[in-house]
Amino acid sequence: MTNKDARTPASVQDEKSEEAGKSIGWHKAYIEGTRPDLRVPVRQVHLTNGQSVTLYDTSGPYTDPLVDTDVRRGLSPLRENWIITRGDTEEYAGRPVRPEDDGIKHTSPRGGLRNLDAVFPGRPRQPRRGREGQAVTQLAYARRGEITPEMEYVAIRENVAPEVVRDEIAAGRAVLPANVNHPEIEPMIIGKRFLVKVNANIGNSAVTSSIEEEVEKMTWATRWGADTVMDLSTGRNIHTTREWVLRNSPVPIGTVPLYQALEKVDGRAEELTWEIYKDTVIEQAEQGVDYMTVHAGVRLAYVPLTANRKTGIVSRGGSIMAAWCLAHHKESFLYENFEELSEILAAYDVTYSLGDGLRPGSIADANDEAQFAELRTLGELNRIAKRFNVQTMIEGPGHVPMHKIKENIDLQQEICDEAPFYTLGPLTTDVAPAYDHITSGIGAAMIAWWGTAMLCYVTPKEHLGLPNRDDVKTGVITYKIAAHAADLAKGHPGAQEWDDALSDARFEFRWEDQFNLALDPDTAREFHDETLPAEPAKTAHFCSMCGPKFCSMKISQDIRREHGGTRTEIEEGMALKSKEFAASGNRVYLPIAD
Amino acid sequence: MTNKDARTPASVQDEKSEEAGKSIGWHKAYIEGTRPDLRVPVRQVHLTNGQSVTLYDTSGPYTDPLVDTDVRRGLSPLRENWIITRGDTEEYAGRPVRPEDDGIKHTSPRGGLRNLDAVFPGRPRQPRRGREGQAVTQLAYARRGEITPEMEYVAIRENVAPEVVRDEIAAGRAVLPANVNHPEIEPMIIGKRFLVKVNANIGNSAVTSSIEEEVEKMTWATRWGADTVMDLSTGRNIHTTREWVLRNSPVPIGTVPLYQALEKVDGRAEELTWEIYKDTVIEQAEQGVDYMTVHAGVRLAYVPLTANRKTGIVSRGGSIMAAWCLAHHKESFLYENFEELSEILAAYDVTYSLGDGLRPGSIADANDEAQFAELRTLGELNRIAKRFNVQTMIEGPGHVPMHKIKENIDLQQEICDEAPFYTLGPLTTDVAPAYDHITSGIGAAMIAWWGTAMLCYVTPKEHLGLPNRDDVKTGVITYKIAAHAADLAKGHPGAQEWDDALSDARFEFRWEDQFNLALDPDTAREFHDETLPAEPAKTAHFCSMCGPKFCSMKISQDIRREHGGTRTEIEEGMALKSKEFAASGNRVYLPIAD
Repeated sequence: MTNKDARTPASVQDEKSEEAGKSIGWHKAYIEGTRPDLRVPVRQVHLTNGQSVTLYDTSGPYTDPLVDTDVRRGLSPLRENWIITRGDTEEYAGRPVRPEDDGIKHTSPRGGLRNLDAVFPGRPRQPRRGREGQAVTQLAYARRGEITPEMEYVAIRENVAPEVVRDEIAAGRAVLPANVNHPEIEPMIIGKRFLVKVNANIGNSAVTSSIEEEVEKMTWATRWGADTVMDLSTGRNIHTTREWVLRNSPVPIGTVPLYQALEKVDGRAEELTWEIYKDTVIEQAEQGVDYMTVHAGVRLAYVPLTANRKTGIVSRGGSIMAAWCLAHHKESFLYENFEELSEILAAYDVTYSLGDGLRPGSIADANDEAQFAELRTLGELNRIAKRFNVQTMIEGPGHVPMHKIKENIDLQQEICDEAPFYTLGPLTTDVAPAYDHITSGIGAAMIAWWGTAMLCYVTPKEHLGLPNRDDVKTGVITYKIAAHAADLAKGHPGAQEWDDALSDARFEFRWEDQFNLALDPDTAREFHDETLPAEPAKTAHFCSMCGPKFCSMKISQDIRREHGGTRTEIEEGMALKSKEFAASGNRVYLPIAD
Repeated sequence: MTNKDARTPASVQDEKSEEAGKSIGWHKAYIEGTRPDLRVPVRQVHLTNGQSVTLYDTSGPYTDPLVDTDVRRGLSPLRENWIITRGDTEEYAGRPVRPEDDGIKHTSPRGGLRNLDAVFPGRPRQPRRGREGQAVTQLAYARRGEITPEMEYVAIRENVAPEVVRDEIAAGRAVLPANVNHPEIEPMIIGKRFLVKVNANIGNSAVTSSIEEEVEKMTWATRWGADTVMDLSTGRNIHTTREWVLRNSPVPIGTVPLYQALEKVDGRAEELTWEIYKDTVIEQAEQGVDYMTVHAGVRLAYVPLTANRKTGIVSRGGSIMAAWCLAHHKESFLYENFEELSEILAAYDVTYSLGDGLRPGSIADANDEAQFAELRTLGELNRIAKRFNVQTMIEGPGHVPMHKIKENIDLQQEICDEAPFYTLGPLTTDVAPAYDHITSGIGAAMIAWWGTAMLCYVTPKEHLGLPNRDDVKTGVITYKIAAHAADLAKGHPGAQEWDDALSDARFEFRWEDQFNLALDPDTAREFHDETLPAEPAKTAHFCSMCGPKFCSMKISQDIRREHGGTRTEIEEGMALKSKEFAASGNRVYLPIAD
């Protein structure tokens, strides 16, 4: 089987080898936990002054030159032994995969997968689920007071005590999405007590994109810092694309099962049934999806509340459920069957992401009756989920002007018992299509500062088309900025060390360190080199922005050099001279005239 | 003289003609005031549904196909008649232009301008200043209760009563920068009661860039929405570059005279004198600079306060003044001569922009003693300036984490008697060189919401190099987003109409309207066309993002179509059906379980 014919995502692998050859000023390191198979990856940046800085790393084994990754084999199942050792899950035959799972109708003139070679060729596996009567979720363990290896792993990652992780999960203030069928992930946690996380959406649509591209986008997104990835595929090969993504993903994968369910009824919302939906959820849970967006808060009664909106219902899931409710004049089958659904999710430790199907799609619709009515229902559903030990987070808007953002997080925290809030943006204006990563990055930073636990990225293509590789990168970097700005504003312990290290490098003209510490070293280096490309410029005490004469940092350094060696000396020297000056009768030290 | 040889900015002109030929869905219109020579430009966007939307327009005569512009002649002096009619200014011989003004030393082996043809060829003009004993500034007029044509102009632009403009200027809460030697500008106002404004910096440095490029960047920046432009040139031809920029600029031009003064002493800060500085200020005031950044708040006593900072002094002007103060162990000559300086500025109606030379250059240094000590001095200087009828705004930081931003604007407003705040960003994290338009766009939106009147843009090249044309555009668009998001959050009357018009277009799949209403129509159209390039796609009821089956807006519209015609009908229809449903005994309308 050649790569070209098979349409497999081999390019991901090629790219990794390419990068491994580059000198990049940092390497992948691991912090060991209490057991040898618990090794938490970090990005160790080596500075030219001999120091090093340790950064959180989401890029998975792909950036470890010692690990031989192969997208056709999948990542090694890091958590498998932990899951098996717990002894509360069991393998079973599982639901047979059907052509319809990939959107192939037997009535289709060109039946069968477009290319059978696309089927994931990795090791055969059987799905796993909780044994009868066993509560296998991380929430159940936390409530029982137990610290799982997953909890210890995230404690090391977040630099907090494992008990903090356990307690936050037990209280429902944090989730650790980790399906027992996704042993490949490096555990991570989502909660306001921890670092703000970023989700990147990928997914083909009926119009464009292939399996290969989606797997590549996933590894690309995690390389730049995506903490989770949602596969929102809606076109063909939806099951198979997901399998490739899951088997190769070092981060939790989220989905919206409703999209695939709708494909199974050929896009006719009114033909959806609870049975088809449930079958899809089981299919995806068996594959290993870590969290699922469920639009169970879109109740029949709320649909009329959207009638006078400027932009109606803008959530795909929300509009599908609204169409179903109206077509049948019945309450949502998701709302009606929420307890059964919770039972299913609990068996696999799939985390709920309760979708905000009625989120505002324009500034005009922000914080309206429809939106908050649904939020109250999500609060109700959150409590039901918790009864079944299902970890739960709550999705949030959308388009919201700045002065209405805080109300969203405050209300969500109150109504949903502090369950993690997971917001899309919000976009703070409607007028900038092609720049909605920025309109929303503004809102994202603010809402994260005020307590949102995870931010769903928005790319420059929002409202216009499907993001390509560059858009994915731009979206992730923008949202890493928003998340880190929020970590700083929340005073997250250690967050500022990164800024300090970069600012020290900047002040001391350690250009290479400045690049290597940057969120995007490649672009920083490229921009610098555009106007000052020569190697000596990398040690120059200025850049092309101001030139040598006007470099304030250089002047500032010269001042220090002239007036003493260490900072303390400078201060004493300057203070002394200034005191002499004051003593000379000048009014420098007089209180400021007022 | 051919364009190529002359190094004149002819390409600006060419580009305009090119654009005039394009169908762009909007045209330049004018709103007339109480006199025929008072015509306020607006951008009239024509929608496909027959409606039109009027937007604020900063692009000047360049976007008016009926105006024949020529950068070699300069713009026509719109305000000349108003200024002459007031009768309180007079022309005079003015200061002779010297080679040193362009950084040419008589000792230089290659004396003379690099290219004499670069000298601005437009109509000869003599400088103008206030007659002895006359208070000619807009502030003086406002205080006397008079409404100048400039005030009426901005009142129309801002859609408020002229009295509001006059009163805000009189109270010192707003400035209308309009040097009597810059009659070409279309008046605009900066104050928290008005639309948030954006400044774009241009300027060559010793390392790179030409006159031609700078004039092009100026027209380019105003085309995308820059309300003022600062010419921060520090290299050669600094006087001549400024002349070209001024004669062709429809927006107020700001400068930092200290940069040119330093060039005159060959970059040796300690050789600066009050006389050289004053001479430079007069030179620039005679040319028509509308506002000047003056770092008079960097006092000798504050320099030691920066010694323990992570990044010392990062303002060029601040570091130059600090170096001067320490070299001489004397109080700043700007602080000492501030009254005389104010007298000069008053004669030309140059507006002060009191510089924050000690602004923080890193997260670690935000809101420190040095920064706030200087701010208190700026408050003191603001009161002196007002005694001389000089319009004044106050510059602000810098690098500030989100939780420390509000303190900046609150303190500034208190200390500086509500004088307009003019901030650079602030940048909310240090870790993203190459994305500092975004790190700072977040802070800019927030601080503008809380009362900052004008935002100085930051481009992706910040900290790395000199912005090119693309960077200028990205910086301006990012800051227009921040400014408009703030206008929305402040509830500025009419601000939301723009968002509403775009959202209506979006919901109704009027793609062309959506593009034409966008802050950047070209990029929005380009992004859409990347995946769905065909013309029919412009009327399609979906885009490649979700494809036809999953388009929530389409489903939302279908729902409305099925359940009634107008929105009211839909609501009634849905409400009726829902009531029937409720009556059937289902628990849809029960209060939410709690």
